Amino acid sequence: MTLTIGVDVGGTKVAAGVVDERGKIIESLRRRTPAASPAQTEQAIADVVSELLSRHQATAAGIGAAGFVSHTRDSVEFAPNLAWRREPLLAKVRQHVSIPVIMENDANASAWAELRYGAARGHDDVVLITVGTGIGGAIIIGGVLQRGRWGMAGEPGHYRVVPDGRLCGCGNRGCWEQYASGNALVAEAREFACRTASGAARLIQLGGGTPEGIGGPAITQAAREGDPGALRCFATVGLWLGQGLADLAAILDPGCFVIGGGVSEAGDLLLGPAREAFSHALVGGRYRPHAEIRRAELGPEAGLVGAADLARLAYPG
Amino acid sequence: MTLTIGVDVGGTKVAAGVVDERGKIIESLRRRTPAASPAQTEQAIADVVSELLSRHQATAAGIGAAGFVSHTRDSVEFAPNLAWRREPLLAKVRQHVSIPVIMENDANASAWAELRYGAARGHDDVVLITVGTGIGGAIIIGGVLQRGRWGMAGEPGHYRVVPDGRLCGCGNRGCWEQYASGNALVAEAREFACRTASGAARLIQLGGGTPEGIGGPAITQAAREGDPGALRCFATVGLWLGQGLADLAAILDPGCFVIGGGVSEAGDLLLGPAREAFSHALVGGRYRPHAEIRRAELGPEAGLVGAADLARLAYPG
Repeated sequence: MTLTIGVDVGGTKVAAGVVDERGKIIESLRRRTPAASPAQTEQAIADVVSELLSRHQATAAGIGAAGFVSHTRDSVEFAPNLAWRREPLLAKVRQHVSIPVIMENDANASAWAELRYGAARGHDDVVLITVGTGIGGAIIIGGVLQRGRWGMAGEPGHYRVVPDGRLCGCGNRGCWEQYASGNALVAEAREFACRTASGAARLIQLGGGTPEGIGGPAITQAAREGDPGALRCFATVGLWLGQGLADLAAILDPGCFVIGGGVSEAGDLLLGPAREAFSHALVGGRYRPHAEIRRAELGPEAGLVGAADLARLAYPG
Repeated sequence: MTLTIGVDVGGTKVAAGVVDERGKIIESLRRRTPAASPAQTEQAIADVVSELLSRHQATAAGIGAAGFVSHTRDSVEFAPNLAWRREPLLAKVRQHVSIPVIMENDANASAWAELRYGAARGHDDVVLITVGTGIGGAIIIGGVLQRGRWGMAGEPGHYRVVPDGRLCGCGNRGCWEQYASGNALVAEAREFACRTASGAARLIQLGGGTPEGIGGPAITQAAREGDPGALRCFATVGLWLGQGLADLAAILDPGCFVIGGGVSEAGDLLLGPAREAFSHALVGGRYRPHAEIRRAELGPEAGLVGAADLARLAYPG
């Protein structure tokens, strides 16, 4: 059985693993991302690959990078959460690594893993949405990852849902990820706690006594306990999520949406309201089949599994 | 040289023509669409095909239908401007016609014609937006028309751009076509004329003396004369158009947008503001190439030319 290595490079952590032909992780590692320095980030990627290679015979490595990967898939043109600006990442990593290396956008890598081994098995037309700090996306049509003319397709987190809306890290206002992401969930809960401390007593308690202490896990816990304020936060964010999925269905008409990312771990707390909003907002909804909205199955490791699998396909060994 | 027939079926007219291998129209016909009756609409389609067949030896016919065409491309599931609801259009037309017939969504057919013979020649990744009464759309990726899992991809006119916005014919609120279409242009001008009759004197004059008389051609003429109110109407609609193109670029990253439909005949009056808004709104715009925004070249005949060409490809004869 041949092995490949996958490396998922996000704004806060580098997750790497050795993956077999069935998508199973044999060993994995995590490091903090030295995000402010492209050189250090590249060294960190090379280091985890070398470390895994010292213990496993892998034939190729794939990098899933949290940024706009060029269509030639050798550079990261822009990354909202890392210092990459027109960074020739692939060549730099290859200098330090003894096996062939490929690169892919991180959400694309995750979507690929879900298609091959996870929630999207059996589907050909899939949109993956990762709901984490922000929103990532990936589009698969006819079983093929869609990268766009210049490699930058699948960034629905930055389509505009509110004119003159909330300021986004990308510099624009009203982007979807300001309304349907983990950040949006937390902002909603904190604002609620500031406005109505009595109604948010449990949220504030779980946040360590202050509205600013409220984070995603606290909101999920409170919602699971049935706390009305926390449930309302999920309902609000789920509504924005479902509306966005309906917008994407108007454009792409996929057979299946897969929702991944940290916030998706809340399951139906998020997906219940999202499904309802989707059904309500889908254009011509009475006269067409509705896409399934599934929770991702592979968890935070999807990115590295997908990157490893894409490396295997590129270098069958 | 073999000939095929294309029929473009819209909410108000049926346009049909005999088309040669180079996309040239040999003869064309127009009829009003009996839109309220599916049976009469089908008869009208069969009649124009039969009439053209009586004078030309065509090998196949293609229908471009203004509706949600199923992925098997034999029925129209839903049409906002015609009475089709789950209508098995293809089988019904085939009963009356002696040559093979295929069907495609009308915007898809237009996009195909622009790719083969018009503004999108040389491109592989194209989004066509038709700005007419409403907004139609078509997506070509890798030189292939994208229809989605159930044939309903490419309806960006119904993605939501304003929460709780203007009511749309589809039943939802805030759809893009309520802000960036010909209807939106006319509504803008009429509202301006109602509010500020003195500033809209020329528009009202061209409209025959009343705000309600102002139509698209009047607005275009006034804008061409430099009328500030008319120019502002185009600027407003162009801004919404460009913002929508930026949203689509975030999702699809095409190499080229082609803008067709009646309103696109205003040329840079519409496309100037649209290009500016696109450039401003494109996510990561400083770090990526910008898609070209081109005016469609084939005019209102694009739909029938594309339908005829798709029929030729399906039945090479």
